[in-house]
Amino acid sequence: LRTGDPEVVYGEGKSPAQVVEILGRLRAAHPDRPALATRLDAEALAAVAAAHPGALLDAQARCAALGDLPAPRGSVVVVAAGTTDAPVAAEAALVARVSGAGVRRVDDVGVAGLHRLLAVRDELDAADCLVVVAGMEGALPSVVGGLTGVPVVAVPTSVGYGAAFGGLAALLGMLSSCAPGVVVCNIDNGFGAGLFAARVARRAAG
Amino acid sequence: LRTGDPEVVYGEGKSPAQVVEILGRLRAAHPDRPALATRLDAEALAAVAAAHPGALLDAQARCAALGDLPAPRGSVVVVAAGTTDAPVAAEAALVARVSGAGVRRVDDVGVAGLHRLLAVRDELDAADCLVVVAGMEGALPSVVGGLTGVPVVAVPTSVGYGAAFGGLAALLGMLSSCAPGVVVCNIDNGFGAGLFAARVARRAAG
Amino acid sequence: LRTGDPEVVYGEGKSPAQVVEILGRLRAAHPDRPALATRLDAEALAAVAAAHPGALLDAQARCAALGDLPAPRGSVVVVAAGTTDAPVAAEAALVARVSGAGVRRVDDVGVAGLHRLLAVRDELDAADCLVVVAGMEGALPSVVGGLTGVPVVAVPTSVGYGAAFGGLAALLGMLSSCAPGVVVCNIDNGFGAGLFAARVARRAAG
Amino acid sequence: LRTGDPEVVYGEGKSPAQVVEILGRLRAAHPDRPALATRLDAEALAAVAAAHPGALLDAQARCAALGDLPAPRGSVVVVAAGTTDAPVAAEAALVARVSGAGVRRVDDVGVAGLHRLLAVRDELDAADCLVVVAGMEGALPSVVGGLTGVPVVAVPTSVGYGAAFGGLAALLGMLSSCAPGVVVCNIDNGFGAGLFAARVARRAAG
Amino acid sequence: LRTGDPEVVYGEGKSPAQVVEILGRLRAAHPDRPALATRLDAEALAAVAAAHPGALLDAQARCAALGDLPAPRGSVVVVAAGTTDAPVAAEAALVARVSGAGVRRVDDVGVAGLHRLLAVRDELDAADCLVVVAGMEGALPSVVGGLTGVPVVAVPTSVGYGAAFGGLAALLGMLSSCAPGVVVCNIDNGFGAGLFAARVARRAAG
Amino acid sequence: LRTGDPEVVYGEGKSPAQVVEILGRLRAAHPDRPALATRLDAEALAAVAAAHPGALLDAQARCAALGDLPAPRGSVVVVAAGTTDAPVAAEAALVARVSGAGVRRVDDVGVAGLHRLLAVRDELDAADCLVVVAGMEGALPSVVGGLTGVPVVAVPTSVGYGAAFGGLAALLGMLSSCAPGVVVCNIDNGFGAGLFAARVARRAAG
Amino acid sequence: LRTGDPEVVYGEGKSPAQVVEILGRLRAAHPDRPALATRLDAEALAAVAAAHPGALLDAQARCAALGDLPAPRGSVVVVAAGTTDAPVAAEAALVARVSGAGVRRVDDVGVAGLHRLLAVRDELDAADCLVVVAGMEGALPSVVGGLTGVPVVAVPTSVGYGAAFGGLAALLGMLSSCAPGVVVCNIDNGFGAGLFAARVARRAAG
Amino acid sequence: LRTGDPEVVYGEGKSPAQVVEILGRLRAAHPDRPALATRLDAEALAAVAAAHPGALLDAQARCAALGDLPAPRGSVVVVAAGTTDAPVAAEAALVARVSGAGVRRVDDVGVAGLHRLLAVRDELDAADCLVVVAGMEGALPSVVGGLTGVPVVAVPTSVGYGAAFGGLAALLGMLSSCAPGVVVCNIDNGFGAGLFAARVARRAAG
Ligand SMILES: Nc1ncnc2c1ncn2[C@@H]1O[C@H](COP(=O)(O)O)[C@@H](O)[C@H]1O
Ligand SMILES: Nc1ncnc2c1ncn2[C@@H]1O[C@H](COP(=O)(O)O)[C@@H](O)[C@H]1O
Ligand SMILES: Nc1ncnc2c1ncn2[C@@H]1O[C@H](COP(=O)(O)O)[C@@H](O)[C@H]1O
Ligand SMILES: Nc1ncnc2c1ncn2[C@@H]1O[C@H](COP(=O)(O)O)[C@@H](O)[C@H]1O
Ligand SMILES: [Mg+2]
Ligand SMILES: [Mg+2]
Ligand SMILES: [Mg+2]
Ligand SMILES: [Mg+2]
Ligand SMILES: [Mg+2]
Ligand SMILES: [Mg+2]
Ligand SMILES: [Mg+2]
Ligand SMILES: [Mg+2]
Repeated sequence: LRTGDPEVVYGEGKSPAQVVEILGRLRAAHPDRPALATRLDAEALAAVAAAHPGALLDAQARCAALGDLPAPRGSVVVVAAGTTDAPVAAEAALVARVSGAGVRRVDDVGVAGLHRLLAVRDELDAADCLVVVAGMEGALPSVVGGLTGVPVVAVPTSVGYGAAFGGLAALLGMLSSCAPGVVVCNIDNGFGAGLFAARVARRAAG
Repeated sequence: LRTGDPEVVYGEGKSPAQVVEILGRLRAAHPDRPALATRLDAEALAAVAAAHPGALLDAQARCAALGDLPAPRGSVVVVAAGTTDAPVAAEAALVARVSGAGVRRVDDVGVAGLHRLLAVRDELDAADCLVVVAGMEGALPSVVGGLTGVPVVAVPTSVGYGAAFGGLAALLGMLSSCAPGVVVCNIDNGFGAGLFAARVARRAAG
Repeated sequence: LRTGDPEVVYGEGKSPAQVVEILGRLRAAHPDRPALATRLDAEALAAVAAAHPGALLDAQARCAALGDLPAPRGSVVVVAAGTTDAPVAAEAALVARVSGAGVRRVDDVGVAGLHRLLAVRDELDAADCLVVVAGMEGALPSVVGGLTGVPVVAVPTSVGYGAAFGGLAALLGMLSSCAPGVVVCNIDNGFGAGLFAARVARRAAG
Repeated sequence: LRTGDPEVVYGEGKSPAQVVEILGRLRAAHPDRPALATRLDAEALAAVAAAHPGALLDAQARCAALGDLPAPRGSVVVVAAGTTDAPVAAEAALVARVSGAGVRRVDDVGVAGLHRLLAVRDELDAADCLVVVAGMEGALPSVVGGLTGVPVVAVPTSVGYGAAFGGLAALLGMLSSCAPGVVVCNIDNGFGAGLFAARVARRAAG
Repeated sequence: LRTGDPEVVYGEGKSPAQVVEILGRLRAAHPDRPALATRLDAEALAAVAAAHPGALLDAQARCAALGDLPAPRGSVVVVAAGTTDAPVAAEAALVARVSGAGVRRVDDVGVAGLHRLLAVRDELDAADCLVVVAGMEGALPSVVGGLTGVPVVAVPTSVGYGAAFGGLAALLGMLSSCAPGVVVCNIDNGFGAGLFAARVARRAAG
Repeated sequence: LRTGDPEVVYGEGKSPAQVVEILGRLRAAHPDRPALATRLDAEALAAVAAAHPGALLDAQARCAALGDLPAPRGSVVVVAAGTTDAPVAAEAALVARVSGAGVRRVDDVGVAGLHRLLAVRDELDAADCLVVVAGMEGALPSVVGGLTGVPVVAVPTSVGYGAAFGGLAALLGMLSSCAPGVVVCNIDNGFGAGLFAARVARRAAG
Repeated sequence: LRTGDPEVVYGEGKSPAQVVEILGRLRAAHPDRPALATRLDAEALAAVAAAHPGALLDAQARCAALGDLPAPRGSVVVVAAGTTDAPVAAEAALVARVSGAGVRRVDDVGVAGLHRLLAVRDELDAADCLVVVAGMEGALPSVVGGLTGVPVVAVPTSVGYGAAFGGLAALLGMLSSCAPGVVVCNIDNGFGAGLFAARVARRAAG
Repeated sequence: LRTGDPEVVYGEGKSPAQVVEILGRLRAAHPDRPALATRLDAEALAAVAAAHPGALLDAQARCAALGDLPAPRGSVVVVAAGTTDAPVAAEAALVARVSGAGVRRVDDVGVAGLHRLLAVRDELDAADCLVVVAGMEGALPSVVGGLTGVPVVAVPTSVGYGAAFGGLAALLGMLSSCAPGVVVCNIDNGFGAGLFAARVARRAAG
């Protein structure tokens, strides 16, 4: 049914031991696909590394995966506005890769420095699906959506203070985007954006 | 750049004469693609019909289009929860079709009557992209997202009263969906969902 | 007046010593019914265990009770969507039991995995009152309310992040449910749901 | 499955002709139970009266029903705080009666005039389920819940101005009630409260 | 200008040394009236006690005062709904006393136990001004306002969880009160309520 | 119990005939005090004038009263920030007068023109209670509360647009006032403020 | 004190006759500066035209001014994102001009079509102060603020639907802008932005 | 392009080592202007002091700067309402100075003590741009805007509790200000206000 998707455990609120145990169980039950754990703290990452020496670890993304990665089909580009948005972008990128897509990242191309964004325009156009991550006012997806016809998955982040209201300003802005072809995920939900983008990219690759 | 997308005029707040004029102008300037007008009231629809006898009119969707529709590439299925959600579903379906995808609609499959939804499961699995429209608590995208691995674009509608807060309950629910692979558009934004889904479907068709 | 209801102390913000003292006092003053303490942390649970060796302790529910439980009258089924909703479900179940109803739990039947829910349909139909616990988008009560004619008491939980807004998305969704016969409790209020359901079930038992 | 519940059409946004047609169709398809239409305006009520001379009409409740009412089983008492809350109370009462419960109403017993409420205390205690309707600060369910052990279904109304925020103040207050055994419906949702209360009362009657 | 009011230092965010210093300075500059410090933690209270052996300390109110209290003029009664509302009630009572009014407290008379409130009705009627403190749904001021014609100053507290939203439910409810003659202070603002009530009471005493 | 308060009918949502009837009935039942109707539109005011030739009518306040006004005891000054705040100020003033206080109005003394406010400072100091009415940012009560030690009842109005959110900005500002001795009424609630202020003023008059 | 600012009447809620009268009175009292009326409907504009044949009328800005305009000092450029934002931009431009600045407008340079914006970059750099008007997600001020070092006054408009929440999305986004040097006015407040920008421009002109 | 502005690193969420490294790098790359770091905790300030002995440190502002300050051009006055608003005022003042303006501070002139504000009126009038910082109800910018024609940049602070909602009350109030010529920055954003005000002041100085 979901060929290409990994098995996933959401690590938030689980002990390192629980994560290790569930991850191992998922891996054993589904030898045809990777088993992935997200939202891991340093302790949980270390526990996974100790228990599963071959695990793929990504500290910035706070994720770990077991099992061979599928050959990449289709391409996802993950674009991030600021350096503080990087953990969410990393989660999206890793999840898209584990879900079977080829992935590239473009960082630090916020709307207050347009030239950096304009310089990568061809790279954006060449993707099958874009994930665009931004906090504060969350303007980047509108600008990207105006530059290219590739499907854009916008991810608001909780970066910012005061009237950013923990990601609410970015969320409302992305939902109200004046650029068509922009859809939106929950605040800080790199996981959902990466999985969705990979599904789109795999289909585009045929 | 955006091969396959129509030229669009947003009819809200424009006079029938303005809509007719802009639509004609877009059509003349872009003979390779349809010109589309959305959010038209009865008067504007009549004005378009009078000025452009060959126009495609859809009163439920409140849209009109000029020019031959592109041959359909890929398939979009638009799923709606209740009868009052139909106008938004119709807008999504028409926009997806005008944007070059094949489109089918599945109506009245709300979560309070699961058997109707389960009966169309194969149809859902066969699509390249799903648009799922629901008001009130907006639970349908989560259920659909649990039934199939096809990308789901959720559209909350302003149907409901009291704590539905004009679509806010459905919007927050869809963003918080426990099913991965669900992305969200603005409240009542059938246009954005249809355009996005068509882009995904066209790519899937190769 | 309230035959069948326990005497209750709300443990939040009280010291272990205070809980022990009030619980003992309530027990002595009302020998005809259990004395119950809710929202206890590990320290308070330990203090009750030490002071009252015969106490009923439930660490998941964070509750303790003194006195014989009444013979169960009527049946309450507590349904929970995800594993992180379990503490609220446990509180509801324990309170319903201490309040004189028979209680069963059905866990991990979220709307993204419908088959597990459909498999317990008969069990739902056989209850006198259902408590349905869900976080994130809180869709489960609508689905359950569509499957059965038994009264449904919905409890939103604070599980989720971002647009879940600490249970607000689930709360608004449950209040806006398209399934009739669904009533709602405060966020994380397993206590209120359990007590209400037991009152309904006791009456149903005659 | 739902023995005792009526078939229902929600009249909001439907034309008088549509209401008449659906109501007739539901009646024909389900001869064993009443067919009910809610949220009817004067025109729709008149259309139902003209088409179905034997229809039960309730202008205050804005409802119409076809078919014999079931013999009443169990008792629901609908309590309303102020005169402006009466339409919601009327909807709850009519729906409970059509759903097979015996129903009584107690009006104008707001918390700012406690003696009127205290005078009907025995009537409250004798019910199988209470529906308590209040706007503005919505304090009445807490007071009623403190007076009796009968299950209380609270319905906030949109009565009030300013900080009442269209029923939000009453809704939040009822959800936060300091009296246990109070559950809550959507703002102005007399329908849901009446149906739920009838289900509880029918079960209590055995 | 403000004969009867104390000089005040707001202790939140100030170090114990700062509190001691400002309090001493205010005392020296205004020998005709007390100097009061509010929102003190245990450490600050201890520092005041050490520096000013004759200080009046109230740990529940988290306040300290220097200087002789004025002879009481007029009477303020501070009514609190629940035991968790006590710190706010204590702050109101102490501030009213330091501001020159006679003060009595009536605790634990929440609306879910009306008989305790009805038992003190004469005491309420005899006051010049009432301060009514309540959290959760904040229903108490409406009930008190319905029982007596004495001016009522309502203080919502942050007691509660979920839909209580840190005092918002109580605040909106009190502002929307169906009882006239109820005015409202900020959440947890016992200070403002006590000072206002004392001003009213002093005037009433002539 | 409430010597000095009028009998009141709230006119919103009532027909002119209903207002006339209730007003007459209240008047007959309570010959010792005025009968007052608030929130009357032009039609209702005309109907009262026709039915009760001796009625006191105030079109700006949208109020009507029957019966001799009590001799004024104590003094209330109603201060308004802008001309658009005048209807709320008028309601407060009329209600205070009908409730037995002497009343004066000071209009158009918004904080953006401080000299007009400073010019009436003696008048403010001479009052027994102040009602301060302001919309938009609602800053006036803080400034008045800093100028005088007289009790201040603040009334936010719905005047303003955008971020004024129908009175919410003024309401939150008044509740957060940095001046002690300021209490707050509901948005546009001149009635509650006038009644409360009259109660305080009558007591002050002894 | 405010040399260069006009005298202003806010037309909202005033009759055409009132507007004409106040405008004439202001003009007579302040012969050294223009008298300006804002927020005029068609009827009020016509009344001003009839009463004051020499008046400056701007239907898009909904404004009228009497008296010679001051010679322009400094330059304000008013930038608008979409055609529906034009009325707010027009109000800002007219007010800036009447307040003594030179003014130019740049329209239809939304972030979804960056090339139009980049084409006017020199014009932006040459201004003394920019007013940037945008609805929906309100991203334009961030992009402009990244392109130039000129002070930017951002004005959110109420253009949009659903999650735009009447200008709230744009307002929060502008306040959270990642570009420094962006300050914000109230929703649709072209008046405030124009007046502020003119004050800055006049000072810059020396 | 931005002659006069410093290079800036936002210290929140960066380690002391990261701050030291970026600050040094910015300094080296831009020898013509200061390099500034904001939002530094005590540890980061100490690290900067150790690594760059000549650095300018401001603990109240939580900022550090490297490089010679530019000669002051134009004058900014930073006005603060209360002592708890001082850190935000300090950040604004330091940033304005580092950005090339002359700066003075006026503290503790809240609206509840108008005489202190009136005493500095000439100083306000002499500035090229004012930054006005206030928490709680945020009334100060309106009062200042009414006293002077100098451009006012308002900064709401998160000072306050309850209905202040972390700066929201002040923010909404400032946006709704009845005084024209007031623009607003994000909550606690002294940085943005200082930079903007310096840009205005530098232009005013020619
Ligand atoms: N129903 C709709 N909802 C949201 N955006 C729309 C809709 N219809 C058209 N649009 C967008 O509006 C743009 C045209 O706006 P306008 O120039 O005002 O007609 C199109 O390019 C679309 O991106
Ligand atoms: N007043 C009401 N408030 C909320 N839901 C209602 C109401 N009346 C009917 N319904 C629900 O609406 C459903 C019928 O909707 P519809 O098919 O649109 O007529 C019924 O099954 C009820 O669950
Ligand atoms: N608990 C309190 N809540 C609200 N305001 C207070 C409180 N205590 C003191 N205040 C006010 O804070 C002022 C003193 O503030 P400060 O100068 O910061 O100590 C006093 O004049 C009071 O108006
Ligand atoms: N205190 C502050 N508040 C808001 N924005 C700031 C602050 N300090 C620096 N910035 C912005 O943050 C940018 C640098 O961010 P970063 O690259 O994360 O250090 C600067 O160019 C400023 O625009
Ligand atoms: Mg960003
Ligand atoms: Mg739905
Ligand atoms: Mg859930
Ligand atoms: Mg009520
Ligand atoms: Mg309470
Ligand atoms: Mg005002
Ligand atoms: Mg825009
Ligand atoms: Mg302040």
